Amino acid sequence: MKKVNIAIVGATGMVGKEILEILDQRKFPINDLRLLASKKSAGSIVSFQGKSLKVEELTETSFNNIDIALFSAGGSISERFAPFAVKAGAVVVDNTSHFRMDPNVPLIVPEVNKHALKNHKGIIANPNCSTAQLVMALKPIHDKAKIKRLVISTYQSVSGAGKEAVLELENHSRLLLKGQDSEPKEFSHKMPFNVIPQIDVFQENGYTKEEMKMIDETQKILESNIQITATAVRVPVFISHSEAVNIQTETPISVKEVIDSLNEFNGVSILDNPKEKQYPTPRDISGKDDVYVGRIRKDISQKNSIECWIVADNLRKGAALNAVQIAEELVK
Amino acid sequence: MKKVNIAIVGATGMVGKEILEILDQRKFPINDLRLLASKKSAGSIVSFQGKSLKVEELTETSFNNIDIALFSAGGSISERFAPFAVKAGAVVVDNTSHFRMDPNVPLIVPEVNKHALKNHKGIIANPNCSTAQLVMALKPIHDKAKIKRLVISTYQSVSGAGKEAVLELENHSRLLLKGQDSEPKEFSHKMPFNVIPQIDVFQENGYTKEEMKMIDETQKILESNIQITATAVRVPVFISHSEAVNIQTETPISVKEVIDSLNEFNGVSILDNPKEKQYPTPRDISGKDDVYVGRIRKDISQKNSIECWIVADNLRKGAALNAVQIAEELVK
Repeated sequence: MKKVNIAIVGATGMVGKEILEILDQRKFPINDLRLLASKKSAGSIVSFQGKSLKVEELTETSFNNIDIALFSAGGSISERFAPFAVKAGAVVVDNTSHFRMDPNVPLIVPEVNKHALKNHKGIIANPNCSTAQLVMALKPIHDKAKIKRLVISTYQSVSGAGKEAVLELENHSRLLLKGQDSEPKEFSHKMPFNVIPQIDVFQENGYTKEEMKMIDETQKILESNIQITATAVRVPVFISHSEAVNIQTETPISVKEVIDSLNEFNGVSILDNPKEKQYPTPRDISGKDDVYVGRIRKDISQKNSIECWIVADNLRKGAALNAVQIAEELVK
Repeated sequence: MKKVNIAIVGATGMVGKEILEILDQRKFPINDLRLLASKKSAGSIVSFQGKSLKVEELTETSFNNIDIALFSAGGSISERFAPFAVKAGAVVVDNTSHFRMDPNVPLIVPEVNKHALKNHKGIIANPNCSTAQLVMALKPIHDKAKIKRLVISTYQSVSGAGKEAVLELENHSRLLLKGQDSEPKEFSHKMPFNVIPQIDVFQENGYTKEEMKMIDETQKILESNIQITATAVRVPVFISHSEAVNIQTETPISVKEVIDSLNEFNGVSILDNPKEKQYPTPRDISGKDDVYVGRIRKDISQKNSIECWIVADNLRKGAALNAVQIAEELVK
C-alpha cells in the first residue's frame, strides 16, 4: 500500500488525539505526518510511534504535499482552511458539521455508504457522532424491511462537547460531592448529577441543531426520506453516547431477523442477554470500535416496530475512527 | 376539618421521611401519628413538628384506631400487612406496586382521576413514580385530542431505588474521581458517570417491569387503551425523573393548545422558553411539588404528534406528595 502524507487539523483536541491513536493502532500507511493547531497550541510536542512531533500553527500554506487532511477543529476552521487544503491537492476528511449537508460533499460512514465516496470533489464529511452510530445499527434493518419512522432519545456524553466540558464535569462533580455548588461554563445548565435536554442551539421549529443534524444526516446517509424525530439530551457520562431508538418499518421484521442482520453487519456487535443483565452501557463500551446494540424487542404498541438501545464510543466510531476509515478507503 | 389518626409504614425510608415533611408543610389534620418500620429501625427517634416520635415495629396489631395507613416499605410488606390495616378499619394508601393492577383497587392521581376513589374497598394504590408525573402531563392533552400512542424514554434518578442506592452513587462517584473503581451493589451495573437501561427485572416480552408498570398503570389511570412503548433508563442523578415523550393524538392539537391546556391543569407548570435556555432539568425541579413540562414542539416526523420533556421530583409527586393528596381526599 502506498504511503501517504497526512495532516491533522486540531491535533491537540480530544478527537485529534484519538485520531493519532487510531492511525497507530490500525497501522495506517503514513509517510509524513503534519500536526496542525491554533497559534495557542503551536509548539507543543506530541509523541507518535516513539517520535516526538512538534505541533505547527495552521495557516493557509500548511497543506503543501499533503495527500489527506483530517479536520477536527470546529466548523469555522474547516470553512476557512479546507479550501486551501483542496487547492494544494489534498483530500479533506472533515469532522465538523460545516460541509455535511452540502450536496457536493459526500457524507460517509464506510460500512454504510462508501459507494458515495466516488463523487467527492476534494471534501468528504464525517457525520455527527450521534448519527454515525445510529446509521450503523439502522442500515441492515433498513435494507431488510425499509425503515418508515424513527423516534429517538439520546443520552450523550460530555466528551462530545470537548475537553473543557470533560474537565468541568469532573471538577464540578468533585466540588458538589464536597457540598460546594458551582456555576456552569461549558454547559447551558449544571451538568454534575443532572441531565440537560439541550445540545447545541435551538432552531425555529423547536428542535435543537443537534437533533436536526441527526435527522438530516441520517436521511442523507441512508438516501431515504425516513421520517425522524429526536430528543438529544446531555448526561453526566464522560465517554460514549447511548440512544433509545424506536424503529417502525414498512414491512414486518422479527426480532430474530433484526439480530441476524445486525450480526452479519461489519462494525456492529450485539450485547443483548437480559437474563444475565447484559446490554451495552457507556462505561463498558468506551474505547471500543464497534457500535453495540442491546434491548432489542418487539414494540408492543404498534405493528412492524422494534425497540433497541444503541451505544458507541463517540470519540471513536462517532468521530476519529470513522474519519480514519474514510482515509483508508481513499488510500485503497 | 376532622383530625385523623395516621400510620406511616416505612417511616424511616426516603419516601417515609418525605411523607412526614409533606404532612407538616400541608398542615394535614393529624390527631395521632404512628410511625412504623422494620424491627431493625424500631426504636429510632424521628422529630415531627417539634415533637420526638419513637418508631415502632410494624406488627399485625399496629393499626388499632388508625384512620389512614400510608404504606411505603416494599411490596411484600404491603401484601402481608395491608389486610390487617383494613381489618382494623383503616384505609390503606399503598405506595408499592403490589395492589396497583388489582381491579378492586383504585389507582389514583387526584388531579387526574379522583372520581375513581369512590369505588375503594379499603385499599387505594399510589402509582409508580414515573407514571404519576406522566399522567399529570398527559391528562389535559388526552381530554383535548385523545391520545393514540406514546413512545417514552426515561431518565430516572437513583432515589427511585432507595437510600442505599443514593449512597452508592455518592460514594462510588467520589471514589471514581480519585481514580478508584468499585463494584456495584445496588445497581445491575456501575452507576457513576454511566447510564443503565434496566430498572427492575426483565419480563418475557423483553420489556422491564418498570416499563410495563408505566404502560399498564397509565392505561388504568387514564381509563384508555392508549398504545404505549417505553424504555426506562437509570441515570446518575440523585432526585427527579425526566421523560422524553412522543405523543400521537387522534385529532390534531397545536403546540399552543397543548400549552394552554397544561397551563389550566392544576399541578402542572410549563417551563419552556428555548431562547433563554429554559426547560426543566432534574436538579432545578428537585423539592418542587409541580410536574414541569418543557421542549413542547410539533413532531416533524408525523401528523398529529407532539414532543415534550416532563420532569418531576420522584419522591414528591412521584410518591409522598401524591399519597398525602390521596389522604387529603379521604379526609374531605
